[in-house]
Formats: sequence, C-alpha cells, structure tokens
Amino acid sequence: MLYHELRSRVYEANCALVTRGLVLQTFGNVSEYDREHGIIAIKPSGVEYAKLKPEDIVVLDINGKSIDGSMRPSSDTPTHLVLYRAFPQLSGIVHTHATYSTIFAQAKRPCICLGTTHADSFYGTIPITDDVTKQEIESGYETATGVVIVRAFQTQNLDPKSMPGVLVSSHGPFAFGNSALDAVDHAEIMEEICKMALSTLLLHQSIQPISQVLLDKHYLRKHSTQAYYGQPAAT
Amino acid sequence: MLYHELRSRVYEANCALVTRGLVLQTFGNVSEYDREHGIIAIKPSGVEYAKLKPEDIVVLDINGKSIDGSMRPSSDTPTHLVLYRAFPQLSGIVHTHATYSTIFAQAKRPCICLGTTHADSFYGTIPITDDVTKQEIESGYETATGVVIVRAFQTQNLDPKSMPGVLVSSHGPFAFGNSALDAVDHAEIMEEICKMALSTLLLHQSIQPISQVLLDKHYLRKHSTQAYYGQPAAT
Amino acid sequence: MLYHELRSRVYEANCALVTRGLVLQTFGNVSEYDREHGIIAIKPSGVEYAKLKPEDIVVLDINGKSIDGSMRPSSDTPTHLVLYRAFPQLSGIVHTHATYSTIFAQAKRPCICLGTTHADSFYGTIPITDDVTKQEIESGYETATGVVIVRAFQTQNLDPKSMPGVLVSSHGPFAFGNSALDAVDHAEIMEEICKMALSTLLLHQSIQPISQVLLDKHYLRKHSTQAYYGQPAAT
Amino acid sequence: MLYHELRSRVYEANCALVTRGLVLQTFGNVSEYDREHGIIAIKPSGVEYAKLKPEDIVVLDINGKSIDGSMRPSSDTPTHLVLYRAFPQLSGIVHTHATYSTIFAQAKRPCICLGTTHADSFYGTIPITDDVTKQEIESGYETATGVVIVRAFQTQNLDPKSMPGVLVSSHGPFAFGNSALDAVDHAEIMEEICKMALSTLLLHQSIQPISQVLLDKHYLRKHSTQAYYGQPAAT
Repeated sequence: MLYHELRSRVYEANCALVTRGLVLQTFGNVSEYDREHGIIAIKPSGVEYAKLKPEDIVVLDINGKSIDGSMRPSSDTPTHLVLYRAFPQLSGIVHTHATYSTIFAQAKRPCICLGTTHADSFYGTIPITDDVTKQEIESGYETATGVVIVRAFQTQNLDPKSMPGVLVSSHGPFAFGNSALDAVDHAEIMEEICKMALSTLLLHQSIQPISQVLLDKHYLRKHSTQAYYGQPAAT
Repeated sequence: MLYHELRSRVYEANCALVTRGLVLQTFGNVSEYDREHGIIAIKPSGVEYAKLKPEDIVVLDINGKSIDGSMRPSSDTPTHLVLYRAFPQLSGIVHTHATYSTIFAQAKRPCICLGTTHADSFYGTIPITDDVTKQEIESGYETATGVVIVRAFQTQNLDPKSMPGVLVSSHGPFAFGNSALDAVDHAEIMEEICKMALSTLLLHQSIQPISQVLLDKHYLRKHSTQAYYGQPAAT
Repeated sequence: MLYHELRSRVYEANCALVTRGLVLQTFGNVSEYDREHGIIAIKPSGVEYAKLKPEDIVVLDINGKSIDGSMRPSSDTPTHLVLYRAFPQLSGIVHTHATYSTIFAQAKRPCICLGTTHADSFYGTIPITDDVTKQEIESGYETATGVVIVRAFQTQNLDPKSMPGVLVSSHGPFAFGNSALDAVDHAEIMEEICKMALSTLLLHQSIQPISQVLLDKHYLRKHSTQAYYGQPAAT
Repeated sequence: MLYHELRSRVYEANCALVTRGLVLQTFGNVSEYDREHGIIAIKPSGVEYAKLKPEDIVVLDINGKSIDGSMRPSSDTPTHLVLYRAFPQLSGIVHTHATYSTIFAQAKRPCICLGTTHADSFYGTIPITDDVTKQEIESGYETATGVVIVRAFQTQNLDPKSMPGVLVSSHGPFAFGNSALDAVDHAEIMEEICKMALSTLLLHQSIQPISQVLLDKHYLRKHSTQAYYGQPAAT
C-alpha cells in the first residue's frame, strides 16, 4: 500500500513530463523520496512513457538497493541519491532534456533573473554547474553529476528550496520539489523562464538582472511567512 | 443571477487563457467590471485553471471589498482596481506572463508597429512602463504596478480603447477590453504581434515603424465611425 | 447546387487555415473563382472561424457585385478581384497573417531560395512588393494592395503558377492556386519555408540561394511535362 | 504475409512522421529493407499521409524493380537503394524536411555535439554532405544524393550505426536505423538536437563541442557491450 501510493505519485509525475512537453521518447526521469519510510521510487531505465505502468516504477533505499520492483532503475539514479543525501529538504527530483533549459546548459550559461516570472519561483540566478572532469567521469559519472550540483549550491550558498533547479553543464536541467509533482512544476517553469531569457538576451544583449528589491518582493509574496499569494492553507 | 452571469463570463475568459496558450499553471488573471452595478469579478489567487470553478470567481466592489465568494482574490487585484478607476472606458482587464509579450517586457522595450497585424488592433507603439521604484515596491507593490501603467498612458497621451495593451517593465503584459473576453482577445493578438516583432527585429535590426497613413488606414477601417471591416451591427 | 459546391470548397479551405495554424481569431480569408460560371466565393468579413458556416460564404461576380449571400464579403475582396483579373491562370487565393511569412513581409525582405523544400513548390525568390504609397492608400487601399502585387510579378517577370505566393510589404502573405484548397497548401508551405529561412539566415548570414540547376531539378521534377514526382494522373 | 508485415511496419513508421511533427503534406518518406528476403518497402510518391493506406506501400527489390504494389515509389527511392547497398548494417531509412534539421542543411553546417542529448544517440558531429554538382544532378539526381551521403561517411570514417543521421547540403536530413521505426526515432532526436544546437549557437557563438570523454561516456553507456542504460534484453 505504501509502495503503491508512492509508485502512483511517481508514475503520474513521470507522465506529466510528456503532457507538459518536457521529454521525447525515453528521455528524463522523476523520483520521490518518502523520508519517513526511507523509500525512494524512480522511473525504470529506458522505458517509453506510453508503455510505462505504475508497477514498473522501481522502489529503492537511500543506498540504491532495490526494495521492490523487477526493472532496472534509471541510469541517473546515483545522481538522485547524492542529491537526496546532500539536501534533506528535498523529496522530489526531476531530470529532463527539455529544449530551452538544455540550451542554457549547452551554452554553459547560468540563467539570470530577467523578470518576475523567474522571481516568482526561483530566488535569483539559476546556477550552471562546473563541467564534470575526466577523472570524475571515469570514476562514477552519475554520482559525479550529483557532486557537481551539490558543489554549485554550496559554493554559491544556495538552498534548493528557494532555488529549485540547476543547469548541469553540457547536459541539461534538474529540478527539485517537495514531491515528484512539485519538482515537475518547477521543471516546467524553469523551461519557460529559459525560453523567455533566451529571446530577451537576443533582443537586448546587455540586459541586467532585475533589482534585489523586485526579486525579494515577488519571491517573498509567494514563499515566506508573510506570503499573500494563493489561498490560505486549509486548517 | 447578476453575480452568476458576471462570474460565468469571467470564468470563461480565464479558461480561454489556457486554450489560447497564454498561461502555465496558476499564472495570469482576468477580471470584468460591471460598471452599471458596481461589481468586479476576478480570478481567485493561485488556483490552477484545471481546478477552477465558476463559483470560485471572487466578486468585489471598486474599493476591493469582497461582496461575494469565499476565496482570496488574485494578488494583482489592486492593479486592476487602479486601472478601472483611472480608465472609465475599460470593463475588462487581463494579466498574463505570455512568452513573447513577456520577452519585450523583460527587454524593457516597447513594441513598435511593424505591420498591419499590429495596426489592425493597436494604434501605434505598445508602451513599456517605467520600472517600479524601490519606494513604490515597498509602499504597495500591486497598486504601484497600476500607477506606472496609468503614468505611461498619460505621459504618452494614449487611450486604452485604441491602445488595449501595455508592457510592464521586467514583468509582463496587461491587456484591456470592453469585457473580460474582449481583453483576452487583445492579449492573444499582443502575444502574436510581439512574437512577430521579435523575429522581424532579429532579421532586420534597423527596421522602422510603418507609416502613419498605413497605421491610420488599418486601425480606422476597423475602429471608427467609417469602419467597414466586419459585419454591420445587428439592429 | 453550383453555389453550394463552390461555397463548400471555400468553407473547407477557410477552416483549413485554422487546422494548419495559419490564422488567429478572424484573421485571413480564402476565395475561389469558378471561371466557367463567373462566380467567386469568399469568406465574409470579420467572422470567427469557429462560428463560420458554409452558407455564410459570400458569392460575388468578378466586379464584386453580390450574387448570393447576405453577409458583407471580406474587406480584402478588392485585392482578390484585382488578382483574378490580372492572372487568368488563378482560381484560388489565400491571405493570412501567418507568423513567419508575416515576419519576412514586416522586414521588407524577399524570401530567397535556400533549399529544396522551397524549390519543390516556389520557383525562385518569393517576391516582396513595394510599399503601398500614401496616394494609393487614400484612393482605394485594398485595390492598391492588388496593384502592388501585380506590379511585383510583372517587374520580375514572374508567373503565379510557378511562384504561388508573394509577401506584401509591412502586411503579410498572399498565396495562389488552382483552387481554394490548393492555395491553402501553398500558404502552408510558404509559412514553413519562411520559418526555415529565418533561422538559416540567423545561423549563416551570408548564405546564398541554391544553384539554378538544383532549383530547376527540384521544381521541374514536380511541375513539368517531365515530372516524375507523385502518381500518374488517373485516366 | 511477408509483404503484409513489412508493409505494416513501413506504414506505421511513415504515419509516425506526422504524429512526431516531422513532415507537412506529402513531404518525407520511410523505407525498410528485409535483407533476409531481399525486399524493400517504401512510401509511394506524393501521397498525403492522411490518405495513405498500408496496401499503398510499394515493395521493391534492391535494384528498384517493383515486386508488389501498383503505385509509383517515392521519387527518392534511388537514394535509399544507394544507401542500402553501401551500408549493409542499415535496415531502415527516413528522409524528411523537418524544420531544424533542414535549417542546418540549408546553412550548410554540420551539427557539432554540444551536449549529452546529442551524445546519447549520435557519436560526434552530424555530417553535412558536399553539394551535389551540376553534372551529378543531370546524370541522376536521386542516385547522386545517395553518393554524396556515402562519400561523407567514407571521408570522415563514420559508421551509420553510431552516426544514424546526415544533413544533405541545401536539402534536408536522412536518418538511419535497424528498422523503419528505429530510423524515425533517430530522425526525431536529430530534429531536437538541431533545434537545441541552433539556439545554443545564437546564445554562445564560439561554443565548442563537448569533450571526447563525455561523448564516449554518454554514447557508450547506451551503445556498447558495457551499456547499462535501459533494461537487459529479454532472454
């Protein structure tokens, strides 16, 4: 029952990647970590979304040991595990090769905050990681991808709650959330932000990030104890 | 009954934002002001369109006081109120973060009139507002957003009937109309105009606005007492 | 019966503008000229496609005199009439504000032939017209739009059979065909050609048109007495 | 029965070109070569996809001689035959005029490997062919198109298994696979890669290809005896 509900949520979140236009063919993967019960559910490797069934979702522990399910988990599983270990505030992770996010990743460019669409969900510049080095690639590539992400957050003193996304250099985006679906929401917004930033930069090459005060206003009206966007939480 | 019909129209207009590709997730909001009865209906804050129901639409008076409905109105409500007070000719307002309109807003660039698609609906350059200042942000941000819009129209001597849209600097578009749905129509056309203007400028950087005579011809053949576009009004 | 069949074809061709993504709202119009019977059918002015019915299609003679139908014809009707008079080989005309064709029209740039997709359907550079002058605008704008199109074809010695489209400066595309639907097919291909040409030029600014021999090969393998593309005509 | 199954697969693969957004109207064609039985199935020339039926698919031998079917095969058949003869490892071929792949072909630019999306499926730079010469055009154009493709692979020492696509100068893409559908999968990925590469280059003009070690890692984790992406083959 526990596995069933977690699998259902992760299955739905993986399917949402397709309906939101974030993946082709077998690209991408979503996981969710039920920290209370110590179980992680993740997409199986290389399965087409149209053929994916809820019971195909693989259940693992935090060390990557299979707990339930007969399929091989996503080849990017070690990256998810590094991130769940490093960031106790995360319970959902998405990886895609969505077009515009990947364009910034390929251009090795962080996505600066050019407007309130960005400020509403990402508190500042979306970081780009270092390249994974030759040595890192050879000694455990997918783990190393997690390591360069963690390093980007630590170096720039970022919190994945207020910066729920990152661009992996030459690769593509990862997005974060409180759940698998919340991470998909952030992946979708990051894609739209990058699409708008690309053309904003083509139209005005020297455009500067918005002011700190506008960034604070938009981010904090949605995400703080004084937030007044949205409906009051049900009691 | 009065509330019901106004709510239905505003509900339909909000849903049209989705079908026309102008919003993601909970972005955007539409309102309509029934000036005869002094009631304004607007989208509730932070509700997903797929879950929105007609009865969720909030009914307010022109001072923002809730008249009917249990949900919190859009956080952008103060902007709508400033605009309805300043422009007695308006009965519908839309705010979105539509991709191409937002690109111009982020680039802090007005959208000059580059062709007849623009001239058919917007009588000249679509204005960009000033930045909202730090002081304005801190003393009532959403009201200040209305204030910079009104200032742009006053400074440039524009009429929101013939210029049914504006780009708020670093933020996104607002569009206007005789009704909620008429404002959505203008928002959709503004988005297409900005999409075409972006690439026109990339293809020909020094392109100039069309002549006043061509602008007059196209705008006035649709919008004047001598208009001959469309069908004669039913009698 | 005669009117019914012509109207049906013109109705279907107008609806195809929507399904092929070439128009928004009330933009665009398609006509067909039954030369044998001297009747032209055209979309009524300013009607939304979703509300358009076959019986709304207006039937006119070549002088624009209404023969059948109660609605006002497209405001662009005088342009269609000029073209049908000037080009006896035409039986179908489409006007749209399709995005990428309109971008070239707004940039006042002809669309040179950059590849075989273009060469398969348009025999050389798709021309851009002169601007309509102030005097022309004031003395009969829609007729003048036809006049500048005819002038472009005459000056450049073009035949609308082998060059089934044109870009009207600061305005948008017209496309031609043997029937209303054939003209829509050309409008759709012109839109795709312009979309590809835009980015080809952004990627390689000094790219030159393809060779005459490659243009001839592709155009003539589809459109000549030696054509070998497609199936033999039924006998 | 043999013809029926091959035809069905080729029919489905041709229809997939439409659902994946790779073709308009009658553009494009897919074939599959059943090497065991020496039969090739290919789309008939100039037929709209919406009207295409499985029994319309033409069955040929490797010399292009019709074995079964009453329709004329794709005018590009001689290109397919050259490729099947030159590359014994190929059993499926797709030709499209897909937008972004064609943009690179028109710009006469190879598509360098800018990220892992590319590296996952194409082992290095996707080559651009030489122009087909005047003499080649005149002495058998479609055969010559095959010849310039083969020359590009030989000159650059490429294998169509690890480089399952090519850009024909001024024309468009061909993609390869183990079957008709596998070739369509590669055509779709090539289109996405080119779309991302275009904007990556606009955002960062001097961006360099990814390192050989990253290319090897991504390509080989999916395509080698040590591959660990996807599920183990069923036994």
